[in-house]
Amino acid sequence: MTDLTILDVPQVDLLDYMGSDSEICDAARVSTNNFERKSAEVDQKLINYLLKNKHGTPFEHAAMKFYVSAPIFTFREFHRHRIGFSYNEMSGRYTELPAEFYIPNIVRPMINFGTSAHPDYRVPQTPAETHQQEHAYAVMVENVSIAYEEAWKSYKCMLEAGIAKEVARIVLPVGIYSRMYVTCNPRSLMNFLSLRIEDEKAAHVSHPQYEIQQVAKKMEFEFMRSFPMTYKAYIDNGRVAP
Amino acid sequence: MTDLTILDVPQVDLLDYMGSDSEICDAARVSTNNFERKSAEVDQKLINYLLKNKHGTPFEHAAMKFYVSAPIFTFREFHRHRIGFSYNEMSGRYTELPAEFYIPNIVRPMINFGTSAHPDYRVPQTPAETHQQEHAYAVMVENVSIAYEEAWKSYKCMLEAGIAKEVARIVLPVGIYSRMYVTCNPRSLMNFLSLRIEDEKAAHVSHPQYEIQQVAKKMEFEFMRSFPMTYKAYIDNGRVAP
Amino acid sequence: MTDLTILDVPQVDLLDYMGSDSEICDAARVSTNNFERKSAEVDQKLINYLLKNKHGTPFEHAAMKFYVSAPIFTFREFHRHRIGFSYNEMSGRYTELPAEFYIPNIVRPMINFGTSAHPDYRVPQTPAETHQQEHAYAVMVENVSIAYEEAWKSYKCMLEAGIAKEVARIVLPVGIYSRMYVTCNPRSLMNFLSLRIEDEKAAHVSHPQYEIQQVAKKMEFEFMRSFPMTYKAYIDNGRVAP
Amino acid sequence: MTDLTILDVPQVDLLDYMGSDSEICDAARVSTNNFERKSAEVDQKLINYLLKNKHGTPFEHAAMKFYVSAPIFTFREFHRHRIGFSYNEMSGRYTELPAEFYIPNIVRPMINFGTSAHPDYRVPQTPAETHQQEHAYAVMVENVSIAYEEAWKSYKCMLEAGIAKEVARIVLPVGIYSRMYVTCNPRSLMNFLSLRIEDEKAAHVSHPQYEIQQVAKKMEFEFMRSFPMTYKAYIDNGRVAP
Repeated sequence: MTDLTILDVPQVDLLDYMGSDSEICDAARVSTNNFERKSAEVDQKLINYLLKNKHGTPFEHAAMKFYVSAPIFTFREFHRHRIGFSYNEMSGRYTELPAEFYIPNIVRPMINFGTSAHPDYRVPQTPAETHQQEHAYAVMVENVSIAYEEAWKSYKCMLEAGIAKEVARIVLPVGIYSRMYVTCNPRSLMNFLSLRIEDEKAAHVSHPQYEIQQVAKKMEFEFMRSFPMTYKAYIDNGRVAP
Repeated sequence: MTDLTILDVPQVDLLDYMGSDSEICDAARVSTNNFERKSAEVDQKLINYLLKNKHGTPFEHAAMKFYVSAPIFTFREFHRHRIGFSYNEMSGRYTELPAEFYIPNIVRPMINFGTSAHPDYRVPQTPAETHQQEHAYAVMVENVSIAYEEAWKSYKCMLEAGIAKEVARIVLPVGIYSRMYVTCNPRSLMNFLSLRIEDEKAAHVSHPQYEIQQVAKKMEFEFMRSFPMTYKAYIDNGRVAP
Repeated sequence: MTDLTILDVPQVDLLDYMGSDSEICDAARVSTNNFERKSAEVDQKLINYLLKNKHGTPFEHAAMKFYVSAPIFTFREFHRHRIGFSYNEMSGRYTELPAEFYIPNIVRPMINFGTSAHPDYRVPQTPAETHQQEHAYAVMVENVSIAYEEAWKSYKCMLEAGIAKEVARIVLPVGIYSRMYVTCNPRSLMNFLSLRIEDEKAAHVSHPQYEIQQVAKKMEFEFMRSFPMTYKAYIDNGRVAP
Repeated sequence: MTDLTILDVPQVDLLDYMGSDSEICDAARVSTNNFERKSAEVDQKLINYLLKNKHGTPFEHAAMKFYVSAPIFTFREFHRHRIGFSYNEMSGRYTELPAEFYIPNIVRPMINFGTSAHPDYRVPQTPAETHQQEHAYAVMVENVSIAYEEAWKSYKCMLEAGIAKEVARIVLPVGIYSRMYVTCNPRSLMNFLSLRIEDEKAAHVSHPQYEIQQVAKKMEFEFMRSFPMTYKAYIDNGRVAP
């Protein structure tokens, strides 16, 4: 499988952002016609209050622009977030896709010990479960590798025969990587994070797929660094987006 | 390839709708505080006026709910329509996907005789072009069939080994069919149609991929039947959505 | 004040709707490729599950269309709801506005016994508070009546002088009634209701202004009648919109 | 009328922005997996192409944040722009509104020489029309001044009687100034400008009210300075937003 690059993590880069915690406070203070800057402590209190009381609009007067590279099945979940999200993605119509494919790392649970509605992708708890996971992992790697190779061979063969990229790409698996720009704001991002990160301490525990969670965690890290007070208030508020 | 169902068309069913051309007129006439019903002729004139002058909101007071079955690569294009569109799709996390795959019909052009920016998927014009298309078609069918079979075999093999559906599905090609509910309104639908149907008579000629155009044409047919005056005005207005 | 009609309630009529609780369930069941109709009991369980787990999209495959007449200051709050809401309003540019004005009923609290952030519009608790409310009410009626009359006189006088409606209307108070069509879906409506109805039993208690709450309660009543299972689940879920 | 400040222009300040023409190009070039920076000339060509062909999403990966102060009737029109617009406005519930009122300048046409559907707010063409305008202006100033004074007197009187701000404000005219933060992106802004600026050279000539056009022109000026290539392409494209 010399041609294929195998990856098990997404790439997430913060390319640019606008605003800050204190500017979010500025936007909120318009409502009381108050344009004075306050201390960090007072700002943190205000942000906590906004989060807790579902005053969401002040968090829209800021922006974050990301570059994200992840498998197509993850982008499919991502693109269901319609409001406050802008996307530009690499196009299989215009571009020969790069040969980058996703094969999960061995730490990625292979088996759902629960049900669909109540999934349980736990780390194996017993020797039997460990064996099950290891066996499943080996089966997965073998099957996925063959399927990826075959798909890529078919894709390249069709391109060489002069078939249009938009036709040839129909064989490509949803495990192939794609690339996109994503622009959002702290409010829409918090809504995304609340659904795409699993946290037992959250007020509403969500069960996102492992791979979009990998993306979400990297976005959350950048969010924490750019808007630390808003991040703190969001976590303290049980990950309930305003 | 006994297991796989091969399809070359999407399924599009109008499940339900709300409103009518005359009710769209009612919504428009709120602006002049005028709640009288008028003749069909007067309504048609008003609808023409609304379309031409970009008064889009009256077309939002109606709704259309569709069932759509089409390949994933088509759904990927579809889901980029964020505003005035609601989606619920079959989930590869919760469901073993049906073995329904897309292989284009021979009438589907295989070769782009233009460029990416100026595509030309013309019906072959010369014996040489006809030969090129026929050859490409044969290459496509062979390669796509192998890739689909291999992907499906891998998928089933992983499921049988107890691997979670959400993991196993990563090998599935974007040419597999998915299913969804789509709800929109005449305004958002006209915007979709203006981008997803190619019509040389349109004020702005769009170049959508063949397959999403198959879906769009079926949706347009239902639109024409449910809102005939709005449809007429839209076409007369050069397919410019308000 | 012979010309002015004084009103103290909004008008809210459900003009049309699409869908039902069981059709919301249909949309949800697409995700598991399950198109069978189930019993009402099973549907209620599913709807409870969707609400509780923030699966909001199935509630978008339905629609409700309302006629609403209420004061402009209430419409101003209403129009801040951008997502899943469509509006067409009577235009002061094109229409001479009807002489319908809002003067609150005596049961409407006149005095905030709390603060802006923690308002307390309680029913008077003591004879002193009762006296304060009654006095304030009398002052309000007198002042509002004069201001309305003066504004209306100015407006009519300008119209008679041939001044454009869009200019003359600048004197009209935000307490004048306007009229609009509003179309939304159960999801966007639940979000609206969660912010615009105060309920001490809600998970997040909101403090909307009295007048938009009058509108919201009438919309909620229609929601309850059209989608009783969704309504029940919403209330049981502490008025948390999915 | 010593208390009232009379204004005839809006205030529009660009507070912050993110992105540039070349970064819009970056976002567009993701689709062809091309991350190289190009010359200004090449960028301008790409931007022209995007505008002309209705590729709107690249223009969403940038942001502009404005402070706007204008009369309430103008904000009412503004807030009907729902998509790609975020608002935080001074609240009459929490704040005593500043005594700033709009009275049009004498250059503002007072008379519609056309119809509602085909308005004609032309500069007076004949001595008779000039006289009509001058007379109307005098009538307007007199009537508006009285109505504003009366409304303000009533408002203050109610506040002094301890009546809640949210009640007292119902007498305030839609000609009083309000203040808000507005955040948008070049795409949503172009859509706004296409509807809110009248330009005889536009592909679709819009007929916005004079006052929102005052706001729009100031926003357009900032847009021109921040995204000069996009602005140029937008104008060259007949003010058709992508």
